[in-house]
Amino acid sequence: MKKTVLFLSDRTGITAETLGHSLLTQFNDLDIRQFTMPFIDTVKKAQKIADKINQIAREESQPLVFCTLLNQEIYSIISKSDCILYDFFNHFIAPLEAQLGMKSSHTIGRTHGMNDINSYHDRIEAVNFSLNSDDGLGISSYDEADIILTGVSRSGKTPTSIYISIQYGIKVANYPLIEQDLEDYVLPDVLKPYKEKLFGLIITPDKLHQIRSERRAKSKYASLMQCEHEVHTSELMFINEKIPLLETSSVSIEEIATIIIDKLCLRRQLYG
Amino acid sequence: MKKTVLFLSDRTGITAETLGHSLLTQFNDLDIRQFTMPFIDTVKKAQKIADKINQIAREESQPLVFCTLLNQEIYSIISKSDCILYDFFNHFIAPLEAQLGMKSSHTIGRTHGMNDINSYHDRIEAVNFSLNSDDGLGISSYDEADIILTGVSRSGKTPTSIYISIQYGIKVANYPLIEQDLEDYVLPDVLKPYKEKLFGLIITPDKLHQIRSERRAKSKYASLMQCEHEVHTSELMFINEKIPLLETSSVSIEEIATIIIDKLCLRRQLYG
Repeated sequence: MKKTVLFLSDRTGITAETLGHSLLTQFNDLDIRQFTMPFIDTVKKAQKIADKINQIAREESQPLVFCTLLNQEIYSIISKSDCILYDFFNHFIAPLEAQLGMKSSHTIGRTHGMNDINSYHDRIEAVNFSLNSDDGLGISSYDEADIILTGVSRSGKTPTSIYISIQYGIKVANYPLIEQDLEDYVLPDVLKPYKEKLFGLIITPDKLHQIRSERRAKSKYASLMQCEHEVHTSELMFINEKIPLLETSSVSIEEIATIIIDKLCLRRQLYG
Repeated sequence: MKKTVLFLSDRTGITAETLGHSLLTQFNDLDIRQFTMPFIDTVKKAQKIADKINQIAREESQPLVFCTLLNQEIYSIISKSDCILYDFFNHFIAPLEAQLGMKSSHTIGRTHGMNDINSYHDRIEAVNFSLNSDDGLGISSYDEADIILTGVSRSGKTPTSIYISIQYGIKVANYPLIEQDLEDYVLPDVLKPYKEKLFGLIITPDKLHQIRSERRAKSKYASLMQCEHEVHTSELMFINEKIPLLETSSVSIEEIATIIIDKLCLRRQLYG
């Protein structure tokens, strides 16, 4: 079944997109064409989109519309168009107001805007920290790190550390294990003082072989035998040293991030 | 008003967190203490959390609970606890099923898991591309870039390029403008072939001065005069060359990302 899906917002559209995306992944047989339309902040823009919705309804079928429109005039224009509307705010805000005995601010752009200048600054600091502590850099600043990821080359350390820092403002360093680190199943000296911050990433040898081959085909580095050796010895080292570890081959960045923050008992706070 | 807020999920909790966060930012006077509890995938875990909820209700007040629990047995345990429950899935999934004439899969972990191995791979590729094309690196691969950000040092290029690539799987390079690039208000030669991919970032001289001073206090690089000069000449160059530009001083990464993708008319698709 084919369906057009629109995510509409006064501001970035990230909330509408996340919400709609979560719901739609529950429907396997849906073949969707999706568009995000951010910054619908004038009546003129709203009318243009309402026209577009009506056109899709005529030519195809009623589109699914997920919206987070706080301006009631704009919302009213969209709600009168020919669509199946899932209105995020009006659905939840009113019951929340009643429960809390408090009026909502109905301020546009609070979610993903820059409301709290300090927390925004912290988050950018965390991203810079992670970039400056990538791949064994910045060892002298490990005291400041909240998490130190470790694992062999191409086990997924960099994307994970960047995701965690940008999403949660948590400072993540990452340290690559090289062959001489893996000889005796003990932590490299440089990591010993930071045991409680360490988290080990492993990956299946097949997958590692595949990823490394894309970079340096037919090298010793990419050979299946070398990958098997490195993965196996790094895993034994993590177990021997009681470092929490995760096999990342079939896990998304979001899941890896969630598991690490959870296992290290870090405070998780969404920014943006 | 103080309130404890819990985000509960079978999986990562990212959807519950994003949803709840969006709603709560509408309430200015709420002093919240928030916890995300991911991976509630056993009855035992659910019972432990229900006990915790009841304890908070007794000692403080009913907590607000935002959940995306698909397992009905687990959901049922939480729904019987003493809380104000905002149930994301049951609220929207049933109406969607009716509208689409289709049963949902009720599969746990579809949203932020690794359902589509190819799109996951594309996303990691985009992140690697952005890291390898950071700060003027990787010019030879600009043909492959979807976006090339440019601006003076510390105008926000790196966090923006990383955010866009990790969130949307879009390949973003970034090129820093140095003094000799700014002499005659024309694009540096290296950027000329890629005009339609370019986006300029600017920042207020005060803010730039402040950011640069944190790195190299009292240097010429950080001086207000130098910052004024660089910002002014880069802005004139963008205007002269008709490069879309954005002043980032009071805009969040999410907003910057949304504006850039929108202005360059790129396809936006949420991953995860």
